[in-house]
Amino acid sequence: MPRTAFFISDGTGITAESLGRSLLAQFENVDLRMLTKPYIDSVEKARTLVEIIEATAVRDGEQPIIIDTIVDEGIRDVIRGATGFKVDIFSTFLKPLEQELGTHSSYSVGRTHSIGKDEVYMDRIHSVHFALDNDDGARTHQYDEADVILVGVSRCGKTPTSLYLALQFGIRAANYPLTEDDLDENGTLKLPKVLATHRHKLFGLTIDPRRLTAIRHERRPNSRYSSLDQCAQEVEQAEALYRQLHIPFIDTTRFSIEEISTRMIAETGLTRRFSPR
Amino acid sequence: MPRTAFFISDGTGITAESLGRSLLAQFENVDLRMLTKPYIDSVEKARTLVEIIEATAVRDGEQPIIIDTIVDEGIRDVIRGATGFKVDIFSTFLKPLEQELGTHSSYSVGRTHSIGKDEVYMDRIHSVHFALDNDDGARTHQYDEADVILVGVSRCGKTPTSLYLALQFGIRAANYPLTEDDLDENGTLKLPKVLATHRHKLFGLTIDPRRLTAIRHERRPNSRYSSLDQCAQEVEQAEALYRQLHIPFIDTTRFSIEEISTRMIAETGLTRRFSPR
Repeated sequence: MPRTAFFISDGTGITAESLGRSLLAQFENVDLRMLTKPYIDSVEKARTLVEIIEATAVRDGEQPIIIDTIVDEGIRDVIRGATGFKVDIFSTFLKPLEQELGTHSSYSVGRTHSIGKDEVYMDRIHSVHFALDNDDGARTHQYDEADVILVGVSRCGKTPTSLYLALQFGIRAANYPLTEDDLDENGTLKLPKVLATHRHKLFGLTIDPRRLTAIRHERRPNSRYSSLDQCAQEVEQAEALYRQLHIPFIDTTRFSIEEISTRMIAETGLTRRFSPR
Repeated sequence: MPRTAFFISDGTGITAESLGRSLLAQFENVDLRMLTKPYIDSVEKARTLVEIIEATAVRDGEQPIIIDTIVDEGIRDVIRGATGFKVDIFSTFLKPLEQELGTHSSYSVGRTHSIGKDEVYMDRIHSVHFALDNDDGARTHQYDEADVILVGVSRCGKTPTSLYLALQFGIRAANYPLTEDDLDENGTLKLPKVLATHRHKLFGLTIDPRRLTAIRHERRPNSRYSSLDQCAQEVEQAEALYRQLHIPFIDTTRFSIEEISTRMIAETGLTRRFSPR
C-alpha cells in the first residue's frame, strides 16, 4: 500500500505540486501516491478535503504528507487540523521574509495567480499564434519578427518546443524543417536560402536516431521516412550542418521540453517577454 | 533602486522561480527585481554566480534574496557563502521529511527534472499534434479520440488552452469554433451536428465582449468581426447555448491559461496522462 502525498492550493496547485514533486523525488525508494488538490478556496472545501485526508490516513495505515501553498489563514487553519505530516511552505518562509523586507505580507487569496496585465495575455496569445503560423516552415516572411528560428529534421521536437516557448515565456519561435530538398548534388545538407539572412536567430535540435525512428513510426509505420537508416542519415547531416555553421544545438533525446526551452534561453540569452505563473 | 531576488537551480529553475514568485508576490509594496539562474550545476558556475550576487549586493546597497532548489551539497555550500537572505527550500524540508519517511533522500543532481519514461514523451508529442490537427474545427473525425472538445467564439482562448492541456497534462483537446454558420433561421445558435454525438465531451469558453473586441482588433482592425456589437452578440448567443444544453463553461477574461486549464480539470474530472515537471 503506497503512502499518500497531498499537494493543496487555493489556486492552480502548480507551485505546490512542482515543489512537492521536487522534494519527494529525493526519496526514490518510498512508494508514494501523489494527489493534487487545487482551488481549495473556501473553508467548506477545506473541510471536505480534510475528510478525504482522514479517510486516506486510515486506509493507508500511515499519515499522509501534506504540502500546501494556501494563503488564507482561515482555510489554512482547517487544513492544519488534518492528520498528516505538514510541509507548510508559506508560514515557514513568509515570517522571516517579512522581517528581512521590513514589511508585512498580503495574504490575499489567489494573488499570485491573477492574470495580471492585459499586455501579458495579449503577448501570450500573439506568441502562440505566431508559433502556429510559422510552424514547420509554413511561412517564412515573418522571420524578421521571430525571436528564434528552430531548425531540425522532421519530428525532432521543433513544434512542441516552439509552443512551449510561446506559452511560457512569450517568445516568438518559428520553426523550419531540414529535409532532403535542401541537399546539394553531393548529398550534403545546405542551409536553406530563406534561413541564410537569419543565421543569428537559428537554433538547432537534434535527436537520437533510434528515438526518431520510434516517433516517426507512430506517424508512418514501415516507411522509408521512419526507417532507422533514413533517420540516422538525416540526423548526421543536420548535425554536420550545425557544426559547420556554428549553429548552437541541443539533443532533445535526453531532455524534457522544459529543459530544452530553458537551456536554449540560458545559452542564447533570449529575452522572456513575461514570466511563467 | 529595486532590491534583487535570485531564483537559483541546478535544473530548469521552474520550481525555484514558481515558489519564489509566489512567496514574493505577498509583498506587493516592495520593489523587487527577480532573476532566474538555472543550470547552476557545477561548483565553477556557482562561484561565478556568487560574484554576480556580491556585485549586486554592493550596487543595490542591500543584500539580495536568494531562493534555491540546488540538490548537490558542494554547489549549495558555495551559494551559501554568498551575501544574501537565503530561503533554502531543500535543506529546510528534506531533513524533517527524511525523519518522517524513515529513510535517507538521494541528492542526485537534476533527478527531478529528468525526462522520465519514453511513454511520457510520446504521449506529450501525440497530444500536441492532436491539438494542432484538431484546432479550430479543422478535423472532426478524430473526436472519438478526444478527451475534451473546447467550444467558443473565435479568439476566446480555445487554441492556447488546447495546447496547454496537451503540453502540461497530455490531455487530447480538440477545439471547435461557434460561428454564424451555426445560427438557425431565427438567429439562434444551434449545436453544430458534428458536436451532437460528443456532448459529454464539450466544454465552453466565454469572454468579456470588450476583451474580445480588443483581441480581434489586433487581427482584423475596424472590421465587423472585431466590432463590439458583433462580439457582444456572439458571446451572448454562445452563453445561451451553454446554458440551454448544460455545457459547463468558464469565462477566460479573468483567468490565465493555467487557471482555465486546471479549473477545467477540477470541474470535469478529466484525467491527466502525466504530471507537469
